[in-house]
Amino acid sequence: MSGIQTMGQKNLMFFSGRAYPQLAEEVARNLGVEITPTSLRDFANGEIYVRYLESVRGCDAFVIQSHTAPINQWIMEQLIMVDALKRASAKRVTVIMPFFGYARQDKKGRGREPITARLMADLFKQAGADRLMSIDLHTSQIQGFFDGPVDHLFAMPILIDYLRDKIDPATTTIVSPDTGRVRLAERWSDALGTPVAFIHKRRDLDVANQVKVNEVVGKVRGRTCVLIDDMIDTGGSICKAADALYDHGATNVIVAATHAVFSDPAVDRLKNSAISEVIVTNTLPISEEQRFDKLTVLSIAPLIARAITEVFTDGSVTSLFEGDS
Amino acid sequence: MSGIQTMGQKNLMFFSGRAYPQLAEEVARNLGVEITPTSLRDFANGEIYVRYLESVRGCDAFVIQSHTAPINQWIMEQLIMVDALKRASAKRVTVIMPFFGYARQDKKGRGREPITARLMADLFKQAGADRLMSIDLHTSQIQGFFDGPVDHLFAMPILIDYLRDKIDPATTTIVSPDTGRVRLAERWSDALGTPVAFIHKRRDLDVANQVKVNEVVGKVRGRTCVLIDDMIDTGGSICKAADALYDHGATNVIVAATHAVFSDPAVDRLKNSAISEVIVTNTLPISEEQRFDKLTVLSIAPLIARAITEVFTDGSVTSLFEGDS
Amino acid sequence: MSGIQTMGQKNLMFFSGRAYPQLAEEVARNLGVEITPTSLRDFANGEIYVRYLESVRGCDAFVIQSHTAPINQWIMEQLIMVDALKRASAKRVTVIMPFFGYARQDKKGRGREPITARLMADLFKQAGADRLMSIDLHTSQIQGFFDGPVDHLFAMPILIDYLRDKIDPATTTIVSPDTGRVRLAERWSDALGTPVAFIHKRRDLDVANQVKVNEVVGKVRGRTCVLIDDMIDTGGSICKAADALYDHGATNVIVAATHAVFSDPAVDRLKNSAISEVIVTNTLPISEEQRFDKLTVLSIAPLIARAITEVFTDGSVTSLFEGDS
Amino acid sequence: MSGIQTMGQKNLMFFSGRAYPQLAEEVARNLGVEITPTSLRDFANGEIYVRYLESVRGCDAFVIQSHTAPINQWIMEQLIMVDALKRASAKRVTVIMPFFGYARQDKKGRGREPITARLMADLFKQAGADRLMSIDLHTSQIQGFFDGPVDHLFAMPILIDYLRDKIDPATTTIVSPDTGRVRLAERWSDALGTPVAFIHKRRDLDVANQVKVNEVVGKVRGRTCVLIDDMIDTGGSICKAADALYDHGATNVIVAATHAVFSDPAVDRLKNSAISEVIVTNTLPISEEQRFDKLTVLSIAPLIARAITEVFTDGSVTSLFEGDS
Amino acid sequence: MSGIQTMGQKNLMFFSGRAYPQLAEEVARNLGVEITPTSLRDFANGEIYVRYLESVRGCDAFVIQSHTAPINQWIMEQLIMVDALKRASAKRVTVIMPFFGYARQDKKGRGREPITARLMADLFKQAGADRLMSIDLHTSQIQGFFDGPVDHLFAMPILIDYLRDKIDPATTTIVSPDTGRVRLAERWSDALGTPVAFIHKRRDLDVANQVKVNEVVGKVRGRTCVLIDDMIDTGGSICKAADALYDHGATNVIVAATHAVFSDPAVDRLKNSAISEVIVTNTLPISEEQRFDKLTVLSIAPLIARAITEVFTDGSVTSLFEGDS
Amino acid sequence: MSGIQTMGQKNLMFFSGRAYPQLAEEVARNLGVEITPTSLRDFANGEIYVRYLESVRGCDAFVIQSHTAPINQWIMEQLIMVDALKRASAKRVTVIMPFFGYARQDKKGRGREPITARLMADLFKQAGADRLMSIDLHTSQIQGFFDGPVDHLFAMPILIDYLRDKIDPATTTIVSPDTGRVRLAERWSDALGTPVAFIHKRRDLDVANQVKVNEVVGKVRGRTCVLIDDMIDTGGSICKAADALYDHGATNVIVAATHAVFSDPAVDRLKNSAISEVIVTNTLPISEEQRFDKLTVLSIAPLIARAITEVFTDGSVTSLFEGDS
Repeated sequence: MSGIQTMGQKNLMFFSGRAYPQLAEEVARNLGVEITPTSLRDFANGEIYVRYLESVRGCDAFVIQSHTAPINQWIMEQLIMVDALKRASAKRVTVIMPFFGYARQDKKGRGREPITARLMADLFKQAGADRLMSIDLHTSQIQGFFDGPVDHLFAMPILIDYLRDKIDPATTTIVSPDTGRVRLAERWSDALGTPVAFIHKRRDLDVANQVKVNEVVGKVRGRTCVLIDDMIDTGGSICKAADALYDHGATNVIVAATHAVFSDPAVDRLKNSAISEVIVTNTLPISEEQRFDKLTVLSIAPLIARAITEVFTDGSVTSLFEGDS
Repeated sequence: MSGIQTMGQKNLMFFSGRAYPQLAEEVARNLGVEITPTSLRDFANGEIYVRYLESVRGCDAFVIQSHTAPINQWIMEQLIMVDALKRASAKRVTVIMPFFGYARQDKKGRGREPITARLMADLFKQAGADRLMSIDLHTSQIQGFFDGPVDHLFAMPILIDYLRDKIDPATTTIVSPDTGRVRLAERWSDALGTPVAFIHKRRDLDVANQVKVNEVVGKVRGRTCVLIDDMIDTGGSICKAADALYDHGATNVIVAATHAVFSDPAVDRLKNSAISEVIVTNTLPISEEQRFDKLTVLSIAPLIARAITEVFTDGSVTSLFEGDS
Repeated sequence: MSGIQTMGQKNLMFFSGRAYPQLAEEVARNLGVEITPTSLRDFANGEIYVRYLESVRGCDAFVIQSHTAPINQWIMEQLIMVDALKRASAKRVTVIMPFFGYARQDKKGRGREPITARLMADLFKQAGADRLMSIDLHTSQIQGFFDGPVDHLFAMPILIDYLRDKIDPATTTIVSPDTGRVRLAERWSDALGTPVAFIHKRRDLDVANQVKVNEVVGKVRGRTCVLIDDMIDTGGSICKAADALYDHGATNVIVAATHAVFSDPAVDRLKNSAISEVIVTNTLPISEEQRFDKLTVLSIAPLIARAITEVFTDGSVTSLFEGDS
Repeated sequence: MSGIQTMGQKNLMFFSGRAYPQLAEEVARNLGVEITPTSLRDFANGEIYVRYLESVRGCDAFVIQSHTAPINQWIMEQLIMVDALKRASAKRVTVIMPFFGYARQDKKGRGREPITARLMADLFKQAGADRLMSIDLHTSQIQGFFDGPVDHLFAMPILIDYLRDKIDPATTTIVSPDTGRVRLAERWSDALGTPVAFIHKRRDLDVANQVKVNEVVGKVRGRTCVLIDDMIDTGGSICKAADALYDHGATNVIVAATHAVFSDPAVDRLKNSAISEVIVTNTLPISEEQRFDKLTVLSIAPLIARAITEVFTDGSVTSLFEGDS
Repeated sequence: MSGIQTMGQKNLMFFSGRAYPQLAEEVARNLGVEITPTSLRDFANGEIYVRYLESVRGCDAFVIQSHTAPINQWIMEQLIMVDALKRASAKRVTVIMPFFGYARQDKKGRGREPITARLMADLFKQAGADRLMSIDLHTSQIQGFFDGPVDHLFAMPILIDYLRDKIDPATTTIVSPDTGRVRLAERWSDALGTPVAFIHKRRDLDVANQVKVNEVVGKVRGRTCVLIDDMIDTGGSICKAADALYDHGATNVIVAATHAVFSDPAVDRLKNSAISEVIVTNTLPISEEQRFDKLTVLSIAPLIARAITEVFTDGSVTSLFEGDS
Repeated sequence: MSGIQTMGQKNLMFFSGRAYPQLAEEVARNLGVEITPTSLRDFANGEIYVRYLESVRGCDAFVIQSHTAPINQWIMEQLIMVDALKRASAKRVTVIMPFFGYARQDKKGRGREPITARLMADLFKQAGADRLMSIDLHTSQIQGFFDGPVDHLFAMPILIDYLRDKIDPATTTIVSPDTGRVRLAERWSDALGTPVAFIHKRRDLDVANQVKVNEVVGKVRGRTCVLIDDMIDTGGSICKAADALYDHGATNVIVAATHAVFSDPAVDRLKNSAISEVIVTNTLPISEEQRFDKLTVLSIAPLIARAITEVFTDGSVTSLFEGDS
C-alpha cells in the first residue's frame, strides 16, 4: 500500500488572553503546563494584535479569557486568538470563558431586542471554536446557544466546601435574593441539609405607583442566612436582600456567589452593608482596591484544570459533579 | 437598459398539517383566506406524503401544525411540508407551532443529554424555515435557539379577558404551582392587581428519603386561587397544588394554562379534582372525550390570525402586546 | 516547547435506539462489544428522552436504528441520539440505518412534492452525523444526498449464498417485478449465471381507462423463478408478479428481498400466495406474528459488524464486495 | 414613523456565457428581452474574465450556459458569472443549464469515486445560485442534489409534437435502447398510444468471456421504431440498438433524444447508420459540420423562455406540463 | 386560487450606533430620513444593550457605525445592532463602516497571526449582515473577505474637488509616503494631471543595523507636494515623509487622507510639523481638541447618502465614480 | 466501560492530478512515498472521471495539481479529486496548488466584476478541502479568502541560493518591473544586501493620449540588474522592463520569477530579449519546446515535500522560512 504511517499523538496547549493572566497562570500550574508564549498588544487605535510564538500545529488548544471590563475588548481578543489558532492549524479549539459575557441577554425580553448571548456563541463558533467551557451560566439554556459541546462547570461544591466549617446547618437557611434563583437555592439546600428561603418582590397593593416590597419567604428569624446568587454585579439587590433578612430577624447574613463582577458601586455597598462575609470565586479578576476585609475569594483554577484534563484525555466532565463515570 | 420591469406583489398562502385541522380552519376564517389545498397522507409503512395542489411559487407561506400526539409524526410532517415549500419556490416560510414540541428539553439537566428544543429549531431551519411563530414558549430562551426571527405570542391577555368577569381581584390570589412559574404569576398579578402566591416543594428535614412537602407561600386562606401554568401535561402537579391550596384554606381553585397537552391521566385527574374550573386555549386539539363540564377552552385562532397579518404586512407583532408600534 | 503530549487513542462505542434492539445486540455480539447503556424513554406526551449512562467523550460512535413503524418516531429518536452524542463530545458519529426511511421519495415525481430522502440526509447532517451507513438504498443516487461519506452495503451476497444450494442455475431465472429493478436482476444474473426476466406493466391498448397488463419478458416457462426486489412493503406487486409468472408457466417462484417492510397486508398476501419461499434479511424487525412457514430470515448483522470494523480501523468497506483492498 | 417608503419593483435580466450564444439569443427573442451586455474573455493563460456592462443591482438574474465542450471551461465561466452577479447585488440568481454537465456521475458506481453531479450542484450553490433550471436530467434524483428549487423541464412534448405527423401510432413502437430508459419509453408510449419495446443486453450463457447479446423485447417486426434516449453522446449504443431493431424486422428506425452531445464519432456513426431520422433539440450547440441530412433539430428556446416567464412572474412551471395550475 | 395578494413595498430605515452620531445625522439629513429611534446603553459591567423603538419588520436597514476608539466596543455594538435587526425581521441589513476596523490585518505577515480583517467580515456575516459599505479600504482585496456584496466607495473625488482650487498642477507633485500607496498616487496623478513621487525607505548600506533612509523619488524640488494616504494613524510616517520632502526642496507640503484615525500623538505631530494643510474626511469623529488651524475636514456624508439611495433604489453605485451606469 | 480501544495511527497519502505528473513524482521521491494509484481520464464529452485504486479511508490526504493550461480543466479535476476523497472518508484533505489559479482576480477592479480568487477558495472548501498549500501567492491577502489554514510557501530562498554564486552584491541591483512588486524587491534586497530599483510607468505629461513612459528609479547604470516578479505570463512587461534597464545603462539583466506561466508569446519574447538569464521554478510545467538556452529551472519539489512533512507531523511550516520553531 502507498503512504506513510505514524502513530497519532495528542498535544495539549494552553493559551491566555490579557484580561486576567493570574488566573491563567494558576490554571497552568494546576495542569502542569506552561502558558504558550504569545504576543498580545494593542495598536495605537486600539486594534488588537495576536501572534503565537511557538508552533501550534495539530494541538488541542484551550484558550482562557475572563470577560471582565473592558468586556468587549476582551471578548474580541479571545475571538481573534481563536481565529489565529484556526489559521495556524490547531486541531481543536476549546474556548474557556469562566464568566460568559452577555449571558444575561439570553432572550428577547421585549420586541426588537437582540439575543446577545446567542450572538456570542455564534461569533465564537464562526471564529473557529469547537467547544466552550464555562462556569455557572446565568441560565442553563445558554448551553443550547452553541452548536457543539459545552462543558458547564459548577462552583457550588467549592463554595460549599468552604462554608461547611463555618455554619451549623441546624441554624442556617439558604436564601435566594429573588424568584429567579430559588432552584439554585434548592440545590444548596439539598447539599447542606438546610431549609430554604427567598426574597419575593411584591407590588404593594395599598400604595400606588408600583412600589415593590421585599418580602421574605421562609424561616430566617434567629438564623444564619446564606444568600446565594450566580453573580454580584452592582450589589444593589443583594444588599437590599440582606437588609430585608436582618429586618426579618436574621442573626447573620453571609453572601456566596460565583462571579464577582463587582461593577461600581458594588464594593462600597458590600463593605458598608451588614453582611458578615462575602464569598466569591476568582472567575473574574478582583483588584487590590476591590478587596475588603470580609471578602473571601476561593480559587476556581483547580476546577478548570481538572475539567481541561478530562476534556484532553477524553475523560468525563460529568464525573466531576456526579461521582459516577 | 436591458431587462423587463414589473411591480412586485406579495401573496400570503396558508397551509395546515393534519394534526389539528380545526384550528387551522379557524385561523383561516379569521384571516379571510382559504387553506391551500394540499394532499397529505401516509404510505403503508407510515412514511408521510405531501403535495400542494396549487402553485406556491413566490408566496409568503405560513404553515401551521399543532405538536400533539403522535408528536414525532406531526413534527416530521411539518418538516416535510417546509421542504416541499422550499423546493416549490415559496419566497418565505413561517412555521407556526402553537405549542413548541420538545420545549421542555431546553438544556442539559445532566451530562450526556440532548438539547432537543435546540435540535428542533435547527431541523426546521435546515428544512427551510425562515421564521418561527409560537405561543408561550416553555422558557423564553428558546427564541435564541432559532437562527432567525421568532414571533413569540402570549395567551395571557386572552385568559385574563375571560377571567376578569369571573373573579373579584380583592379576594383572588394568583398562584404558581412551583418555583419555575413565579415570574409568570407576577405578570398575571401585575395585570389583575391581585396578590401572588406559589407552591414550594420543600424537602422534609424531619423525614428521611427525600420526602417533599408542598408548602404554600402567600395569602390563600379564604380566597379564590387562580393556579396558572404554561401547560398541563399529565395534570399531576397541578392537582396536587390545588389540593395543597384547599388544605391551606382556599375557598376556590381555578386553573388557567395555555397548552392543554392533556396526556393520560390528566383529564381524569382534573375531572375528579376539587378544582372548580379549568381554562385553557386550543393550541392543541382537545377531543370530545377529553372535554368535561368544568373545562373552558378559549380560542387562540384570532391571536394567530392577527400575528400572521402583522408579519405579512410588515406590521408590528410587538404591538399586539405593548400597545405601541 | 510548552504543552503536554500523549498518545492518541481510538475508542469505538456502539449505540442502539429502541426500534429493533435484537438486531443491535446481534451486531454487538459480532463486533465483540457491548451496546453502551442508554436511557431511552417517552414522556407522557410522546416526546423522547435520551441519556447515555457512560462517558462518550472522544469516542467513535456508531448509532443503529431500524426505520420501522412508527417510522417517524424512530427517525426522530435517532436524530436526538445524534444530538446528544455531539453535545457529549463524541469525536465522530456514524448513523447506521439498515433500511433508509423515506428512500422512495428521492425525487419530485410531480411539481410541489418534497424530496424527503434528501431532507432526511440533511436532518441527520444537521443533528451532527459525520457519516451514514445503509444497506441496499432504493436508488444509488441517495448516496449523493448526504454531504459526507456514505457506506453503502449490499445484501445480495448473503441472499445468494443462501440460495445457491437451493436452486439449479440451469433451470432458474432471475426476475425483476417491474422495470425499475432490471439492473439489480442483471447483477444477480451475473453472479449466478442464470438468465434474467422481468414483468412489464403494459397499458392494454384494446381496453379503455388505463388498464395495465402484467407482461412477462424472458424465459420462465418450466423454470424456477427468483423474484428479487430491494424491499417488500405491502406485497401487492410482488404477489401479482408471482401470479403472472405462474400464469406463464413458471414451475416455482421464490422471492428474495433485502428489506422486509411488511406493511399490512403483506404477510397475508405472501402466506396465501403460491410463492414457495420468501427470503429476506433482518434489516427491519419481523415480529412473531409476521413470521410464517415459508419465510426465511437471514441475518444482516455480520455484514454490519464487519463494515463497522472496517470503518473504525480505517480499512476498506469496498473490499467487502470487491475482493481487492 | 421614520424611514422612506417606495413601491417594490421586479426586474428580469438575462445573461449568457460564451458556450452557445445562439441559443441564448433565441431565448431572449422569445422572452422579448435583450441579453445584458457582458464582457467575457480569456486571459492569456486561460483564466476567464467576466464583467457586466450595466447595473444588475436588485435584478432577478437568469444565466444560461450550455455545458458543451470544453465542458469544464464553460461550467467554470458560469460559476464565475454567478459570483459576479452575487457581488453586484443581483437579488436572485437562476442558473440555466439546458444540459446538466456531469449528470451521469450521479452515484458511486464503485468505491472511491466522486459524485460529481452533486459536486456541481454544490459548486453552483456556493457561487451564489438560488435556483437551477435544466431539461431532462439524466436521473430525476439529481433535483435532490441542489439545496433549493430546481425547475426540471421536459422536452418530450416538443419531440412528440414534431413526430405526431410523421408516424402512424398503429404501426409504431417506442423503444428504449437499454433497461435504464424503459420508464421514459412508457411515458412516450402513454402519450402516443403506441406499444413499447426495448433492448436488453444479455450475457450469452453459451459463450465465455462476458459476451453481451442485444436482445429486443417487444413487438418491432414490420413496425416503425422510435428509439428514444435523454442524450446521444458517442452514438455507439444507439446505433447498435438500431441495428438490432432492423435485425429483428423493424421497417424503419427513428431516433429521438433531447441532448445532442455528439462527441466523436457520433456524427459519423449516425450518418452511416440505417437510421432514417435523428431528432434532437438544441440544448447543446450543433455545428455546421455536425449537421447531416437526416438530422432534425427542434428548438428548446420557447420552452426555456416560457419557464423563465413563469419563474419571474411567480407562475407555475408545473403547469407547462400538466395543464393545470 | 387561495391566498391574499397585496403590492410589495420597500421601506428604507437608517440606524446609528453611538460611536459618531453627528455623521449619522448628517447622512440622515442628506437622505431626507430620520434616524430610527433606538435605545443604546451600557450595563454596569460594560455589556451593551440595544432596542429599536419602532417596528423594523420588513425594512431595508442601513446601520452606520464609525470604527473609532474604543474600537472593539463600537464594533461589538454594531454586531449586536445587526443581530437585533435580524431577529426583528428586517428584510435586508447593510452594514456601513465608513472606516473598516482591523483592515490593516488583512494577511498573515508572519506565521501564527490571525487575519482579523477577514474575521470581522465573517462576524458581521454571522450576525446577519447581507452587505457591507465602506470607504477607501486599506487594500481592495478586503472586498473578497465578505461573502456578499460590498459597496466600496472612494473619497478621492471629494478630496480632489477641494484641492483643485488650491493648487496649480503645473507646480504640484502627488507623493506617496511609502511604496504601498504608489498606485493610489497614480490615480490622483491621472485625475489632476500632475507628476507623481514617493518616499522610499531604503536600508543604508553604509551603516550597520538596519538603518533606513527616507529617499525621495520623483520631482519635488521647488514644487508643492500633496502627500496622500488612506489613513493617518499616529502621523509618524506622514510627518517624516513631509520632512524628507522639505529636505529635498519642496516649497510646500499638503497632506490629504481619507481616514483621520488620529491616535496619539498624531495631532501634536501634525500641528508641530511644517505641513501647511492637512485635509481629511469625517469617516471617523474628530473631537474639538483634535482640531487645529491647518486642518480641513471634508464631509463624507453626501457620498454615503447617495450610495445608500442607489442601493435602496437598485441604482448603480459604480456610476457614482465612473460616470456611466 | 463499554467499547473497543485501539491506538490511533496517522497515514499520509499523496495524490496527483494529470496537469503535471513529473512535479508530483519529484515531490513523492522527496517525501519517500508513492503517489497513490488513481484512475483519471476524460469521457468522450470532456467530463472528468476519478477513482482511487486503494482504500484512502482515514488518511491524511495531500492532492497536488498545477493550475496550468487548460486551467479550468485542471482546477475542476482537482475539485473532483477532493470530492472523491471526502466521500471515501479521507480524514483530512490538503489541496496543493503550487500556482494558485485566478490569483490575479483578487478584487473588484471595477464594478460588476467577480472576485474569482475568492470563488476558487470557496469552491475548494465546498468540495471538501480542509487546508490549502500554495507558493508565492499573487497577493498575501488571498490567504484570507480561504476559511481555514493556508500554508503559504516562499520560493525566494531557492532562487537566492542559486543566484548567490552568480552575482556580486556590490555591483548588483534588485529591480521590480512595476510599483506592485517593490516590497518583494525590498525582501530580496534585505536578503542579498543589494540596492533596490524599480520601473515606474509614468504618464508623459508632454504628450497627449495617455502615453506611458518606463522610468527607472534607482541605481542601475553599470550594474547587474536582477528583475524579480511572482510570475511571468506573456513576458511583455518583463521584457519592456529589461529594455528600459539596458537603456538606462545596465550592463546585464537577469530575470528571476517563481511561476513560469509562459503564455504565448512569452518564450519568444524572452529568447529574443537581451536578458542574459531567466530563472524560474517548476511550479508549473515547462515543456521541452518552451525551454531555451538561457532558461534555468529550479525545482520547487523539495520545498513542497518538506512542507508536507511538517504539516503531516504537526511541525512548523513557519520554521522553513524563519529559522525558529
